[in-house]
Order: sequence, then structure tokens, then C-alpha cells
Amino acid sequence: MNDVAAGKRVRGGGGSARRAERTAVSLESARFIERNIPNFEILNEEALAIIEWNADTVLEEIGVNFLENPTALALWKAAGADVRGERVRIPRGLARKLCATAPRTFTQHARNPARNVEIGGRNLVLAPVYGPPFVRDMEGGRRYATIADFQNFVKLGYMSKWLHHSGGTVCEPTDVPVNKRHLDMLLAHMTLSDKPYMGSVTEPSRAEDSIEMSKILFGADFVDQNTVMTSLININSPLTFDSIMMGALEVYAKANQAAIISPFIVGGAMAPVTVAGTLTQVLAEVLAGVAYSQLIRPGAPVIFGAFVTSIDMNSGAPTFGTPEASHITYGAGQLARRLNLPYRSGGSFCGSKLPDAQAAYETANSLNMALLSGVNFMLHACGWLEGGLVSSYEKFVMDADQLGTLHHLAKGIIMDENGQGLDAIREVGPGGHFLGCEHTQANFKSAFWRSDLLDYKPFETWDEEGARDTQTLAAERVKKQLGDYQQPALDVAVHEALTDYVAKKKAAVPDAFI
Amino acid sequence: MNDVAAGKRVRGGGGSARRAERTAVSLESARFIERNIPNFEILNEEALAIIEWNADTVLEEIGVNFLENPTALALWKAAGADVRGERVRIPRGLARKLCATAPRTFTQHARNPARNVEIGGRNLVLAPVYGPPFVRDMEGGRRYATIADFQNFVKLGYMSKWLHHSGGTVCEPTDVPVNKRHLDMLLAHMTLSDKPYMGSVTEPSRAEDSIEMSKILFGADFVDQNTVMTSLININSPLTFDSIMMGALEVYAKANQAAIISPFIVGGAMAPVTVAGTLTQVLAEVLAGVAYSQLIRPGAPVIFGAFVTSIDMNSGAPTFGTPEASHITYGAGQLARRLNLPYRSGGSFCGSKLPDAQAAYETANSLNMALLSGVNFMLHACGWLEGGLVSSYEKFVMDADQLGTLHHLAKGIIMDENGQGLDAIREVGPGGHFLGCEHTQANFKSAFWRSDLLDYKPFETWDEEGARDTQTLAAERVKKQLGDYQQPALDVAVHEALTDYVAKKKAAVPDAFI
Repeated sequence: MNDVAAGKRVRGGGGSARRAERTAVSLESARFIERNIPNFEILNEEALAIIEWNADTVLEEIGVNFLENPTALALWKAAGADVRGERVRIPRGLARKLCATAPRTFTQHARNPARNVEIGGRNLVLAPVYGPPFVRDMEGGRRYATIADFQNFVKLGYMSKWLHHSGGTVCEPTDVPVNKRHLDMLLAHMTLSDKPYMGSVTEPSRAEDSIEMSKILFGADFVDQNTVMTSLININSPLTFDSIMMGALEVYAKANQAAIISPFIVGGAMAPVTVAGTLTQVLAEVLAGVAYSQLIRPGAPVIFGAFVTSIDMNSGAPTFGTPEASHITYGAGQLARRLNLPYRSGGSFCGSKLPDAQAAYETANSLNMALLSGVNFMLHACGWLEGGLVSSYEKFVMDADQLGTLHHLAKGIIMDENGQGLDAIREVGPGGHFLGCEHTQANFKSAFWRSDLLDYKPFETWDEEGARDTQTLAAERVKKQLGDYQQPALDVAVHEALTDYVAKKKAAVPDAFI
Repeated sequence: MNDVAAGKRVRGGGGSARRAERTAVSLESARFIERNIPNFEILNEEALAIIEWNADTVLEEIGVNFLENPTALALWKAAGADVRGERVRIPRGLARKLCATAPRTFTQHARNPARNVEIGGRNLVLAPVYGPPFVRDMEGGRRYATIADFQNFVKLGYMSKWLHHSGGTVCEPTDVPVNKRHLDMLLAHMTLSDKPYMGSVTEPSRAEDSIEMSKILFGADFVDQNTVMTSLININSPLTFDSIMMGALEVYAKANQAAIISPFIVGGAMAPVTVAGTLTQVLAEVLAGVAYSQLIRPGAPVIFGAFVTSIDMNSGAPTFGTPEASHITYGAGQLARRLNLPYRSGGSFCGSKLPDAQAAYETANSLNMALLSGVNFMLHACGWLEGGLVSSYEKFVMDADQLGTLHHLAKGIIMDENGQGLDAIREVGPGGHFLGCEHTQANFKSAFWRSDLLDYKPFETWDEEGARDTQTLAAERVKKQLGDYQQPALDVAVHEALTDYVAKKKAAVPDAFI
């Protein structure tokens, strides 16, 4: 374990490192959310039992395909599945039994131990948008994302008070060759932020690189003994596990690194058009995927994932923030809890092209249901625009600000004597005013969540200051945050070793853009 | 009972009435929401018992003031309260006992019986914004509201598929004298819409006018025997019941017309700065108000109201869509259900000056929590802007569209065989596609909620069509709806009688603008 992981900061020398350290100390960052409110249980016991029975029927009768993966087929056969060709039929109850070795909760370590996250239980960890090939900002409009954009989003994530996790592909750096971009992305997360991050999944060898670079950052022994990455393994719904994603899963599970095993479903296209049908398929897919992770290494940390949107049947476009997506997210949370698995779902989902009212309605619908669904790991918690095609600078800081509401909602209602406030009512009495009373003075600073972004000014002041809308306020905040950003301290030798690793790996093979 | 109330339409003669009838038939309007999902229960039994105990302590020890209202004081004294001056102290348990005669649920009749609403139980009735002195639209900006604006909002409410109720003061028609505007407002609701409406509360005599005009519309006997108005009685928090609002309550309760009895609280100013303290005061105030309504007429229909916002302690501005407002709304819903009273809360609340992302985040936060709080009557369900100072044309149609998500969320998850969709999974199998399958074809039309306003188009199409944001789309929808509007049929004699009543009442007294 190196000094960084132990929480001791090593001075890198020079003014820059000292500045960085001062900034790191003053940077306000919230601990992951520990819920003190119930989950919203939309399905009753009977409905849950039907879905669980049907999911086992799907696994037993229909089965799942593990493509181009003889090792997986052999593991399944040895475990008792009926394997014919690439089709794996799993006897009723077997998948659930195999899932039982997965941990109910696990710690993902960050290089700054104050940023470690506990994934599972009643916790909620928030990570930014993942995957968009485009970015948008107010000045520059919509354009292909570059590594400079990527670095900017990592910086914004680092500076976001309510974000616990640096995420993974915060945008696709399309100016870097496809076979090398994972190196630059990892380097950015490791050096520009001290929050936990995700590994590459686009090739098993890139997952290996992610582990190697993590060993440089944390020390090899530390990585052998601890989980330092949570990576995203998508299932090819319906019921298909491809060799690339499974290859990455195999690398991570063997190394005891965490994976989100996640159906990616546009309802009506990759799953039945009904909610209960989709939940059945989601459960069958997660059961098969998580069971497979435990065949690779019993006890490997995994997350029950569910990325599900509805579809606009007129245009075929995926739609977000819809009631049906909420139904599925609520229901899948219940299914995950009955499997004792951490649950990933939700996000700042929207279909809008702009960070406008549509984007905010859809996003707020999604964020609220995710909190009440009992989500433990929320990818895409900020910055998502245009159905995930675009990482939006303005929406990133707008959503990140709204994540504060989730932190405060999750605290629940404080019922101690101070919370009950009976003496305040006694002091003020009928017709009085509470602003000046002792109880208010003692509590007002922490009583109410306050946005750092939204406008609370009187109309006249707001009007005189230019009648700015939310997007405009957000654009100003983006500029300010990127201007104020200072790199968190990192051992110079570690930084050099990471840079060397990236340079060596890049030099070893020719560029590939497909 | 006249023909209109009985559901038979009387031709007014002429093309206009015939056109109106055709429109009325084709106008798509959803029935009030009947929830098939649970409520979100944020407080446990112990916490609820503490708040109920404390509320009774407030009533017994501190009491409430009934100002300038000797009749009320006499009624309270006779009921067993300790009355000193204008202060009424209510022995523990008495208020709750008096509340027991209030109905758990009641029907508010509309002149078109298809629009009748059931208020209480697991139902949710949606009514538009109430009270703003200003309006805003994209072209005209922010300006004082006029009766023409008022009529426009009534028309938009009538045409809104998801809105069940025409509301009351959809904006303040500031160009009409204060002492006469209730007449024009009622006339607009009665003639431009056939949805249920609210009565005037700004003077007891105006409540009398509301009943008189309703008798013209529905027939006197019908109004004597049925509830045809639900009106808004605000409590002067903390713990004060003024004679104007109580005067209106007395008129309505005696006539068996419904009243929402509602604390109006900016937390930290009109109630303790803590959530549990505010809930205690809300419950004490509602207990006293509802008990008083039952002293006036046992069995009079009333609603447990809670209008509560948080405050920005930096500026003193009320804030909306905040976590603390959600806590209070969830908690108050539980308290209302334990009193067996219908519950009013929630709305399209926001502090933003524009129908932008801030407005939509705050509104979606508020609408979602209101649905899960078990609200039965939601005033301000669409059109609210700038902390309630402004009725926004664009936001009216934007919010009204989002109300569709509440309808669909409330349906819950259908668990019948078609809903389970197992045959679809069998038909499609691993790696297949559901779009063409039989189950999808049979269900796609009703499977997913679809916005009538938001943009679901591909980026390129959207861009070519002018890259419109939500506000711009909404402005176009407002124009189209007002252009398409056709008045619902109404008996010409009834219409004339209403117009005559208004003219006579207006002529009888001089204008007053304060």
C-alpha cells in the first residue's frame, strides 16, 4: 500500500503541488448517501413471487446464449446447466443459488481514503454520465468529444460536492485512437481526481491495463487485496452474453474487482413491451450474469444492474423520465434486494437535445424514482443529455447541484427534541413570527437544502442582472469551476510511472480507429 | 336539477352551439386518478404518535386565535374549549373527536357529470394554479394579469387532457374591480369550461355569490343536496383563524359545499424551521380548522390542506421543490390519512422566473412527491411560476403534459398474463427483437405514456426544424390550443341568467380597487 492510499499526502514539490494540497483540503465533498428513509415498494409479495418464478422459467426453458466463449460453456456445464451449442439452460433455482456467494455490500477504495465508497445496503453512490460520443456547451454547441473534454468532465466531477465517484467514460475521447483511449481516460481519472473510478471494458486486454495502472496508483498488494474499480458490464439483451463483455467481466472478477452486470434495455425492442415482462427478463439476465461471475470467482463483488428506458412507438426513439421506466426501476430494486445484491439503476436521464425544461422534468423524474427505488450505485447521475448521445457541460453542473436534494431527502425526518420544535411553537405563539426565535437561529444554517446554482433572487434583481435562465447560470458555473480547479496532490513518482505506462503501451501498437 | 347537471345537453340553437357540442364529445379528458400504487410512508408509527401528541399539546397549552369572530368563540366554548379573549384552547382529543364527522371522501359535481370528481380515498384530482397577480408568456413577457388572461387559462384548463378541475383564481384579473372580479371569474369557469370549479373566499358575501351563481348553473335543489364547489380556506399560520376566511368557511360549510382548510407556511417564518416542528403545527392548525367546520355543520365536506415551502435563509425567499418540502408533504399525508380526511398538497411549485430547467426540476420534484404522498386534491398542478407570483402560459401546458406521467405512474404494474409477457420472451428468444412480435403489436399503443409536447425527434430533424426548446414548443401549443378552443355547450337560458346575475350585482355597488 503506498502513501496515497494510506491517506498520507506526499508533497510533489513545487508550488503547484502545494496549491493542490491546499485546494484538496478546502474542497467540500459529501460522503456517499446513507438512507434514513424507506424504499418505495411498488410490488407486493405475490407479484414478486410471480416474476421470480417466471425468470426461472425463462432460464430453464429458454436459456441464455454465451457467445464465442467455450470456457463459459464449460463452467456452466460443470455447474449443472444444460448446455447445447452456445445456449445455456439453467435449472430452476441454480442461478439464484450461485448468486448467494456475491457480497451484499463492498468497499470500493479511492486513492484518497476519505473518498472510499460503500456500495450496497442502504447506501447510494453517485457517478457521472458514461459513454456519450458528443459533448455540448452553450458556446460551442454540439460536437464530437475529445480528450480535452474528457479531462474537463473529470475536473468538474472532482469539484462536485454531491458526486462521490469519478465514473468511467464521461465522454468518448474520439480524437484518441480507439485502442488507446482507455489509457488516457484512466490516466485522467487517476491524476485529475482522487475519487473512485471505473475500469475499461471494451476489450479484456484493456481491463488488464486498468488493473495494471491501478496497481501503479494503489500498489500491487493493495489492489490484490481490495476492490479499487467498479466497471460496467452490459448484457446484450435479450438473453445474450457476448465474449467481449464477458471477457472483461472474467478479468475483473478474477482480480476481485467489482462489476455492474446490467441488462441494457429499450422496452418493447430488447424486452417485452410490458413492465412485468421486462422485469422478468431483467431478473433472468442478471441472475445468469451474476451467477456466471460467481462461477469465475465465488465472492467477486458484483452489482445487479438495470438500465431500462421506454420507447416512443411513433418514432422508435428511447424515452426517459417516463412512468414505465419508474415502474421498472422500483420493481427491479425490490428484486435486487431479495437477491441481497447491490443495485445499480437511475440517472440524469432525458431525451431532450438541450438542458431545458424537458431535460429537467425527465431528469428529476428519474433521480427521484432512483432514490426511492433503493439504488446503491447510480451511473449517469449528472451530465446526461439527448438520450445519452451527449455529455452536456451545463447539464453536468445543473444535475450535480440537484443531487444535493437526494442527499437531504435521504436524511429523513429528525424526530429528536430539537427536531420536534415544540418550544419554538410555545415561544412564538399564535400570530407570531419564527424568523427571530431562538430555535430558528440555532437551526437555520443546516435546516434547508440550498442550491448553489439556481436563482432565488427577487424578480427585480434577477431582471437587472440579465434575466439569466438556468443554462446561462450553469455555463457561468462551468467556467468558474474549470478556472478554479486545482489538481489533487499525487506522489510525483506515481504520476510519472502512470505516464510512462501509458506512453509505453501506446508506442507498442499502431493506432486503430475502429 | 336542470338538464345540464343531468347530463342531457340542451341545444342553444345556432352553429356555434352545435360546434361546441361536437368538440365537447371529441375532447379527450382523463378521469381523476385512482391510485393502484402504495403511498410513501416516511414516518414510522412512533414518529406519527409523537407528532399527534405534540399537536394536541399545542392546542391544549397554547391554543389558537379566532379573530373578530364572537360566533366562533361561542361555538368553541359550547363544545368544551377553554376560551379566553380570542384565544381558544382545545382539550386533548377534542379536536380529533370533532373531526370524525367530516366525510372520508366526497363527490364534487361538475355541470358535465362525466367530469364529476371523487375527492378522498386513493384518488387524486388535479386543479390548476391559483392566485398569481401576474402572467407571463414568451411574447409578452411578465405583466399584470387581466380577465382576458383569466379566460385564456380557463380555456387551457378545459382543453387539458390530464386536468380534472377548472380551479379557482387561475390568475388575478387585476383590470376588474376587487369587489367584482369574483363574479367574472365564476362566470368564466361556468361558461368556458364544464369541469368542476372553486368558489370565492375573499369575503363571505362573495362566497354567497358563488353559491347563488352555482344555483343558477345547477339548479337550486341540486346545490342544496350536492357539493358543487371546493374552495380554499387558508389559515393565517401560526395558529390564527381570521374572520374573512372563517366567514367564507362558515358560508360554505352551512351550504354543504367543500372547503380545503389549509395552513399556508413558509418554513422558518410561519412555522418552526424543522420538519417535525412544522408537521406538528400543521396538524394542530388543521385539527382546529376542520373541527370548527364540523361545529358549523357536522358532516360538511372538508380537506386537510398543507401548503408548505422551505425558505432560502440567505434572501428570505420561499424555495420550492426542496427536500424539506417533500418531507413535510409525505408526513402530512400520513397524518391526514390517520384522520380519515382527504388531503390537499403539492403542485407545480417552483421559484424560477422562467419556464426553464430550474422551473422543471423544482416542479417535477414537487409533482412526484405529491403523487407518492397520497395527495387527493392538488391545487397549482400546472402553470405555477416564480413562487406563485406568475401564471405562466407556457408552463401551464408544459406542466399539464407532465401530469400525464402521474396518471400512468398511479396505474401501477399490471400483473395479469398479458402483463407478464412470458410468451413474448419465448417467441423472441436470445438475441431476437421484440418490436415485431405479436405481444408488442397487441400492446404497444397503450404500453407507454407519451408526451404530447416534448421533443422525441432525431437530432437532425429537430435541428432542421429550428432547434426549439421546451418553452418554444409550449408557446406554439398555447397558440394552437387557444385557436382550437370551442366552448362547451350550455343552455342559453342558464347562460343568460348567469350573465344577468353578474351584471345586476356589478351595477349594485361602486367599483373598489382595494
